[in-house]
Parts: sequence; C-alpha cells; structure tokens
Amino acid sequence: MRLMYPLLDTINYPADIKNLAYSQLDQLADEIRAFLVENVSLCGGHLGPSLGVVELTLALHYVFDCPGDRMVWDVGHQSYTHKILTGRRERMNTLRQFGGLAGFPKREESEYDSFNTGHSSTSISAALGMALARDLQQEAYSVIAVIGDGALTGGMSFEALNHAGNEGSDLIIILNDNEMSINKNVGAMSSYLNRLRTDPRYFKSKRGLEEALHKIPLLGSPLARGLAGLKDMVKYVMVAGSLFESLGLTYVGPVKGHDMDELITVLSNVKQMKGPVLVHTITEKGHGYEPAIQAPDVFHGIGPFDAATGKPLKKRVLTYTQVFGDALLRAAADDERIVAITAAMTSGTGLTAFAAKWPERFFDVGICEQHAVTLAAGMASMGLRPVVCIYSTFLQRAYDQLVHDVALQNLPVVFAIDRAGLVGEDGPTHHGVFDLSYLRSIPNFTIMAAANENELADMLHTAFTVKGPVALRYPRGAGEAVPVRLERSLLPLGKAERVRHGDDIALLAVGRAFSVARDVAQLLESSGISVELINARFIKPLDVCLLDDVAGRIPRIVTLEENMLGGGFGSAVLEYMADSGYSVDTLRIGIPDEFVEHGRVELLFDLLNFGPSDIAARIVSRWPELAEESLRRKKGYGPA
Amino acid sequence: MRLMYPLLDTINYPADIKNLAYSQLDQLADEIRAFLVENVSLCGGHLGPSLGVVELTLALHYVFDCPGDRMVWDVGHQSYTHKILTGRRERMNTLRQFGGLAGFPKREESEYDSFNTGHSSTSISAALGMALARDLQQEAYSVIAVIGDGALTGGMSFEALNHAGNEGSDLIIILNDNEMSINKNVGAMSSYLNRLRTDPRYFKSKRGLEEALHKIPLLGSPLARGLAGLKDMVKYVMVAGSLFESLGLTYVGPVKGHDMDELITVLSNVKQMKGPVLVHTITEKGHGYEPAIQAPDVFHGIGPFDAATGKPLKKRVLTYTQVFGDALLRAAADDERIVAITAAMTSGTGLTAFAAKWPERFFDVGICEQHAVTLAAGMASMGLRPVVCIYSTFLQRAYDQLVHDVALQNLPVVFAIDRAGLVGEDGPTHHGVFDLSYLRSIPNFTIMAAANENELADMLHTAFTVKGPVALRYPRGAGEAVPVRLERSLLPLGKAERVRHGDDIALLAVGRAFSVARDVAQLLESSGISVELINARFIKPLDVCLLDDVAGRIPRIVTLEENMLGGGFGSAVLEYMADSGYSVDTLRIGIPDEFVEHGRVELLFDLLNFGPSDIAARIVSRWPELAEESLRRKKGYGPA
Repeated sequence: MRLMYPLLDTINYPADIKNLAYSQLDQLADEIRAFLVENVSLCGGHLGPSLGVVELTLALHYVFDCPGDRMVWDVGHQSYTHKILTGRRERMNTLRQFGGLAGFPKREESEYDSFNTGHSSTSISAALGMALARDLQQEAYSVIAVIGDGALTGGMSFEALNHAGNEGSDLIIILNDNEMSINKNVGAMSSYLNRLRTDPRYFKSKRGLEEALHKIPLLGSPLARGLAGLKDMVKYVMVAGSLFESLGLTYVGPVKGHDMDELITVLSNVKQMKGPVLVHTITEKGHGYEPAIQAPDVFHGIGPFDAATGKPLKKRVLTYTQVFGDALLRAAADDERIVAITAAMTSGTGLTAFAAKWPERFFDVGICEQHAVTLAAGMASMGLRPVVCIYSTFLQRAYDQLVHDVALQNLPVVFAIDRAGLVGEDGPTHHGVFDLSYLRSIPNFTIMAAANENELADMLHTAFTVKGPVALRYPRGAGEAVPVRLERSLLPLGKAERVRHGDDIALLAVGRAFSVARDVAQLLESSGISVELINARFIKPLDVCLLDDVAGRIPRIVTLEENMLGGGFGSAVLEYMADSGYSVDTLRIGIPDEFVEHGRVELLFDLLNFGPSDIAARIVSRWPELAEESLRRKKGYGPA
Repeated sequence: MRLMYPLLDTINYPADIKNLAYSQLDQLADEIRAFLVENVSLCGGHLGPSLGVVELTLALHYVFDCPGDRMVWDVGHQSYTHKILTGRRERMNTLRQFGGLAGFPKREESEYDSFNTGHSSTSISAALGMALARDLQQEAYSVIAVIGDGALTGGMSFEALNHAGNEGSDLIIILNDNEMSINKNVGAMSSYLNRLRTDPRYFKSKRGLEEALHKIPLLGSPLARGLAGLKDMVKYVMVAGSLFESLGLTYVGPVKGHDMDELITVLSNVKQMKGPVLVHTITEKGHGYEPAIQAPDVFHGIGPFDAATGKPLKKRVLTYTQVFGDALLRAAADDERIVAITAAMTSGTGLTAFAAKWPERFFDVGICEQHAVTLAAGMASMGLRPVVCIYSTFLQRAYDQLVHDVALQNLPVVFAIDRAGLVGEDGPTHHGVFDLSYLRSIPNFTIMAAANENELADMLHTAFTVKGPVALRYPRGAGEAVPVRLERSLLPLGKAERVRHGDDIALLAVGRAFSVARDVAQLLESSGISVELINARFIKPLDVCLLDDVAGRIPRIVTLEENMLGGGFGSAVLEYMADSGYSVDTLRIGIPDEFVEHGRVELLFDLLNFGPSDIAARIVSRWPELAEESLRRKKGYGPA
C-alpha cells in the first residue's frame, strides 16, 4: 500500500520549495520522513542520519541555490533528503541497489552533488578547495560543508579548519551535532560540544531570538533579509564556541536543528557573512521515527525492516564479525595483555560484548584511524597485545602509520580487518579491495585471510603468537555456515591448506574466494579436469614449500582473490615463481583495475564474472587443451 | 682542531647531570651547542631543531628519570641532545652515516629511545598508548611527548589530543613552539599560539614567576618541590590556552624554553600533576648559532658546512627538485589554472620561486598531507589544475585521500612526488620506496617516473594533458647532469622509450634506475650479451605494445626499479605477461622485503647490490647460458 505524499509529490527540484510557507515546510518535512521510512524499510540504508537532517536539508535548499551554490555532504549517508529534493525522488526506491541511486552523493548521478563522499571528515577540505578555486576564478557563490560531530573528530577535519581559519575565504561549515557517530560519540571534542549545548548563554540567546521572531511579521520575504536587529542577535549567539573562534572561524550557534524558522533565519544571515563560519546545529539522529531514536546504532545503517515496528525483516545469520567478536572475547579471557581498539565502530566490528565485559581494556578513539593505529603501536611497545578492529576501507586512512609506526618497529599489533572484499550496497567508497595490495609491500607484516568462520577464530588465536604485526582479513556479512567448532587450533605460520590433490591445475584461493574455488574445482573435476585445490591462508609469507611442489608437478596455476589484481595475492604468486625461475602458466582472478559499483554482493560477483561457472569457463577458455585432455581421458586413452 | 668540552666530556648518562647547579647546566648547554655545530658541520643533519631544544632536553633529563620515564620525540630530528645525554656522545660523529647513529630516535639503538619517530605528529598517539598501557599494568612512571608547533597542525595530533583529553590518563605533552615547521608556520593554530605568546597575562605571570623565583633560596633541592606558592603560580599561568583546556587538557605556559631555571621549576611541578597536561614552551630554532637563526629553513636539515661561517661545503648541483620547480613555474605561466600545494615543504619541494611569483596560486597548508590532497581534489572539481608537491614518504599519509577523493572521481590532480626511491641519511622512515606499490592498484591513476632532468620537465608538461590523476615520481638530490633542454616535449601517454635494440635480454628500468640500467647494458654488451635497453617511463599504463613485441622476440626480461619488489614495477610487468599468456623468464631487481638503513645513497645501493657490476653479475648468474652464448659468439660460432 503506497502512502500518500500530497505535498512531496509536487516537489521535484529546490525551486519548488522556495515559495512554501513555514507551515508547509513543516508538513513537507513530515512527508519526507514518512517517505524515507517507507523507502528505506524496503531496501535498507542509512536511515538515522538522514532522518536527523530533514529540516536542515530543507532549510539549506530554501536559503541557498544549488547547483550554483555548492554543498558537500560529509560521509554523505545523510544526503537522502538532498537527493529527494534534487530530481531523484522517484528513484529513491532504487537506493543502494545495483543500477539504482547510490547511497552517497555522486557527481556522476546529479549536478546537485558537487563532490563524492563516503569516508568521514573530507568535506571541509573539499569545500575549502572549491572556495579557493571560486576566489581565484573570481566567481561568486556559496560553498557549504555539512559535517557531523563524529566526523569532526577526524584529524583531517582539524587540518582543514586550521587552513580555513587562516585563509579567511568565505566558507560555511554546518556542524550537524547529534552527539553520535554510529555509537555514542567519544572524545574531548564531544564533551566540549556538550558544554556548548548546555551553556546558559545558549538558552538566553535562544529565548531572545524566539521573542524577536515572534514580533517580526513574516509575511512577504520569509528570508527575513535586512530585518533590523537579527544580525546583532546572531552575533550575540556567537559568544560561545571559543575553540572555533580560536582557530579563526566565526561560530554561530547552537541552532535548533529541527526548527525550520530558526534554521532559515540563521542560514539567511550566515549567507551574508564574510570569512569562514561554523554553524552549530543541534539535531537528533533518527528524529521523528521512534524505533530509530531508540536504537540509533541499529538504524544508522540498516537492511530492510518492518516500517511499523522497526524490526529487521531478514533472519539474522552468523556473521564473520560476530565470530570474530566471540573469538576475541575468549582470547582476552586467556591473556590479559589483549586490548581492543576501535575507531567509532564498536558494534560494527563486533566489540559490544568486549566493551561491556572489559571497559578498561576497550578503547573507542572516535573516527580517528590514524591515531588508533599509532596508539596501538605505543601500547604494543609496552608489552600489551592490542587488536585494532577496523574495516578494510577505513584502514586506508592509516596506511602511513602501518608502515612508519608499526612495521618499522616490528610491533606485535593485530589488525582485525573486517569488511575486506566487496561490501555490496555501500559501493565503491567502501569496498575493501585494496588491503592486500597496500599491505603486501610493507616489511614485517604477516597477512592472513580467513576462508570460513572457524578459520577466522583459529587465525586470531594464531595471530597472538606472531612476534610482529599481523593483518587478518575477513569479509562483511554472513559466514560460510560451517558447523561452529569451539576449540581453537594454532595454524602453522605461512602454511597453506592443501584440500585436494590434482594434476592439471592448481587452484589457489584466499579468504572468501576459497568457497568459490571449491565450487570451481567441483565443476572442473566433473568435466574430467584434475584440480589441486589449495586454501592459501597466508598472503604473506607465502607457503613457498607448497609453491615449489606445485611448480614441479602442475603446469597451470589459477589464483583467486577478492582484492585488486594489481599487486594482490596473485601478484605475490607470480613474483615468487619468477624469482625462483619457475615457468608456470598462471591465470589471476580478482578485481580488475576499476572501481566496482554498489549493489548486492551476489550481483557484483556476477558483474565481475566471479561466479563458479564463469570462472570455470574462463579457465577452460584460457587453456583449451584441458577440455581436449579431459575428453581423451573420458575415452580411456589415459593422460597425454 | 678539536674543540674543548670540559664539562660535556664528563657527561655520559642523565645521572651525570642530576647534581649540577643551574649555572653548570647553562655552561653544559653552551658546550652542547658548540659540540652540535662541530659535529653536524662535518656530517650534516638536522641542526636547527636540535639547537632549539638544548635547554629543554637538559631540563627534561634533569627532572625525569629515563629510561624508566618514557620520552617520545615527535619527528625526532630534535633528539640530538637527547642522544648526547644518553650514552651516545662519543658516537655523535657517526650521525646519519652508514653504520652510525640514526638521525632519529631508534629503539634498536638505545633503551633511552622509547619509540621510533621520523614522520610528524605521531608522538601524542604513541605516548598516550604507553600511558594507557602503564595504567593497565598498574605501573608508575611519566610519559612525555615532545612535539613542535608545526607537528601539532597534523590532524593526527588533534585526534590524539581529543582522545587524551577524554581518557584523563597522566600524560605530559611538551609543545615546543618555535613558530616554524621547516618554513615559517602557517594556519590558524599558529596564529592562536602567537596570541598566547603575546597575551598580556603571559608577561604578567612570567614577571610574577621570576620575582617569586628570586625570593626563593635555590640551595639544597633545586627541584623546588614542595615550595609554597609555586603551584598556585603555575595554575595562574594556566589561565591562557583555552583551546587546549576546551579539549580537556591542562594548559601550562607559555614557558621560556631557553631558561633553565624556569624550565626545571615548571617541569618539576608538572611532574606532580594529574591528567593530561600541555606545557607550552617557547623556543628559537637554531638558538645560539647565528647562521641557523638567520636561515632556519637551510639549517633545518643541512649537509656538511663551515662551522665558522655557516656556508655549505658542497658545491651546489642541479637537483631534480630545482628542475621541477623551474618546470612548474614555466607551466604556470602558460596556464593560469595551475596552482601549487605543499604541506609545509615550500623550499624542500622547490616552490620558493613559485610562492614568490604567484602567492595567490600557492597554498602551504601546514604538515597536513591528508587535507592537501582533498583540498586539491576540491580545486580540481572546479576546473583548476592543482599540483600537490610532496615527498613520496609523506604522501603515504594521504593514501586514503588518493583513493577516495581523487581517483574515485577521476579528478585531474598532479602529484609531484619528490624524494622517491632511497633518500640516504634520513633512513628507513624517509625512503620513498613504497609509492609504486601503493599507487599501482588504484584505478584511474597514471604513474610516471623520470629518468633524467629533461624527462622530468617533459613529464610535468605531459601530466597536464591527462584527464585523470597523475603521479610523477623523481628522486632526491642531484640529477643526471644531462644538458638542460629548455623546450618541452609532450610524451606519448603510456609509451616507453626504446633506447637500444637487442636479442638476449630486455632490460626495462624506471626512473633513476634507468641510468644504472644503461651501465648494466654496457657491461653486458661488452661481454658479448645483446641487450635491449628500455626506459619504461610509465608504470601505469604499461606500454603493452612494446611488451608484446619484447615477449615475442626476447626470452629474458630484467626489470629495474627503486621501489619495493612487492607489487612494484617489475610486478606489473609480470602481471601483464601472465595475463597475456606469455612465458618470459623475468628477473626483478629492486628493494627487497625489508627496511633499508640510513647512510649515503651510494653505500645503500652497494648494500643492496644495486651497482651496475653487481646487477650484471646477478643477470649472468641467473642465466649462465648467456655467458656461454657470448663466448660462442666471440669465438665466431654465431648465435645458437
């Protein structure tokens, strides 16, 4: 049953809201919320962040004129209302689906998306770049960065604030303060913002503002431009925020983020201001939808759910993340040196139980991956065994720290790299397909990938026996549904698992790709091709004994990985073979040299011809003689 | 003629300074300065930073007890006095030389070095990690991070401050404020610190402190512990620094950084304080040595010089950096869309003339590589042609921004990657040997390496014609001394330069390694081996036409690069050959899977067997048949 959206149905572009009365804008906000809940309940998405900024987005498009004025949405998961208002309302039911709208702003999708986002804390840098370009090109438009208080803790934001405060270029930074990253925000900045929110000057000035607004007739221009007294009031509100003032920004706020009148009044004034301005808006994540307010972490990003109750529709399956969380909990019970570090991803990385059980051994550092890694290095240097629990795509933020602070000192930090490989609906900004390439060239690193849930637990157990840094990668979502084995085994370091002997082809796979490889092997065997099936387990060090043996017996190698082909696992095999003077014909299967779109992982695998039958076909087409040979065998001629 | 150091000669460990009177400490500081100038004038080094913290280092070792107490030196180039005081005085004449003392703190070198540094802004994270480990282990010692005001602008520092302010763990952060990175500091934080320095409360409280100190008899315990009134005064001084107080730190300062009495008094008090404390010390880079004060950028890091005059001893040669700077200047004159961005490396990356000529098109963002890259992306999205001028090792800090903000949107940002390859005396923290590996797997990137000065200019010229991101790498220091050609050529994209035809071996080299390859080719040819010599120019895209041709004619390939072998250029060649089904025996020569020590580049090349004769020998030993074949040819039997 389709819900009714009488006002929203008439809104296609920002121009359509410019002449609405405030009361209509409020009605529009309500309809947008219902529309968001309806659509996201069907296909999943970042509901909480988007519900929190409905009024803010309306006010921004009411006051500013896109695409002439530029908006950069930090992270971008809060941009759904922006998409609805900029020509994409009717496609919102395709959100995050293959071929549909992206879950983040995307220049390729709309001229209203001025900069692509996905990772945290990039918006001020990008917006400042635009503002400086505008100044050089002697043009005149507003540039606006919308950034959450969580993203503000990322160091890159501070770098950009420091530069913006110094340049003095006109730039509007909207601080969307909902006291949350995905979990409750942490850090001194968060406490600072909290003090601003509860500053008595806030209440005083707000009351003053409200009283003044009541006295002003709002007929005619609702922009309230030129209304006497308002500017002075805005200035008064600026008395707070000395931290930002210290950095050379004008602080305006706090502003009630769900109050259309106040938002429009303040933004209209801010639009006229010179230099960099930070507008501190107070919003509520999930605003207007009770289930999202009650469980903000669940509704930060959610799969399909029942809109009436907020209950997820999908049956919960055991995920790699959960298996990791359990395994770490058990490891920590045995070894008190073990501590866990997360960068604002407590639940996402499976640490909720750990945080509850050992709060003093658990460290959520905020959206600060660089700091997380070097903090771990400092801890490891004193004898702790820190585990940095992090998504593959976000570990990219700390590449230098991996090299410079961990590997150079050969410190025993374990990196539990979740969401490695394709992640699906979050798309190209979030696929974890680079880690094997960027980790492999760093000396001292041991790199493993888990082929199933039990192996993940074993690998974590094994990681703590390694004297240097360890990277352990595993994918997003459901495991292989293998029977759970509670006892853990120590895996021999640098040793692969030979699952099946064969003669024609050696099939070497890492991580989740191993279960694909097993199916490929079965297909090939069923057509009479003899396959040696190997679960490589270690990307570094490689199992060179096994490779020596393979090179001596088997004329063809296929490598299979969920990582970029450039410099990945297959490349490591090629390197070893070349360095050893072996000549083994090798076919590498992995992610080709392009960014992979968003959509369900299964569809993306299809797109990449990553399914077992596609791969089997590629193997046979690479080596047509295999088909002939298998035919000969079937006819009883024996091997050639 | 060796200078006389009567007091310093008696100092080997921190214990030796504990009972010195203040006047003796002042004398010791003078002797250390003379000793530093003498030693660094002979072998080069980071003189300015170390001269600036002589008193501070003495005071720290006077008040704290290392190695029990832990000191982390941010960047670490200011740690020379620390090295002198911790058992390494007599080896200071080996500084930064192969086999000698490292130019940075190094745990492998001394138990007094608690954490290795080299890159900026890591110290607070590492020190906080130690402090948290200490708390968990229920031990009691002080942890001190010493960080410059330049390094404080790096976002990672802010991430760590934000966490430290929240944890409340005992931690001492010494802000060594000399108003400089390598060049004059920039950014709003710098202006803020400047306001603190000139705050009237500073002078007032300083006078108060001095008067109080005059009244207190300093006989007996010079630590002044328990002296009535002092603590209150320190608290009074803390009134300033609200930015740091906002983040939950106790601010103490500003403190005169060359005043032994004041430093020791303040540090003794700070030692007793609870929670995270930031001590703001004001120092002068190069203090006590006039040439270093006059030219702080030159003396930040300098080669051997005349101690009396401060004049460099080495004849200046034309460097790649200078050639790049000139080429960029010419390009910018032709195309007003071109802007230059540096992260606190104006002179280091050859931008001094650019900054003077086009101040409005020049952006020094401070030690903020992440911001620099995304700022460039924002500018490129608006039609500018930004050039990010950066050292290879520091670009590591912005790996995620390369992927997420530049490559994903295929934005035309040019990365001028200086100091690619081995850099010599700065050692493993600074060698630029990872870039080809970490860049190669990123889609949309074009990657080039210049084999000589003219090619560098041509490549920059060419880079501006590419529609996506371009990485252009070139080494530190002197060029190949080729005759300078002023007219620029557009190089065909993705095309290698075939320098000489041959039959037995194809020698493919990139960048500086090409001149080595030329010598290798000559050696091999002189022993009758026919070498096809190729300057690859492009690491991505590879010249596949040439590779097809080579694979069809020549049975052996040698690749030569100044990059990690894991995932580098040679790996790219292997990948193409394997993907195309070619079987060409390939020998890859590059940096093996370990960190390379410090020392002169020539010595490091020797260490790695990277010299022409070593490489020629490795080639012949890989393919002994070549020697036989050449023998046969010499005997006139013709090719086999």
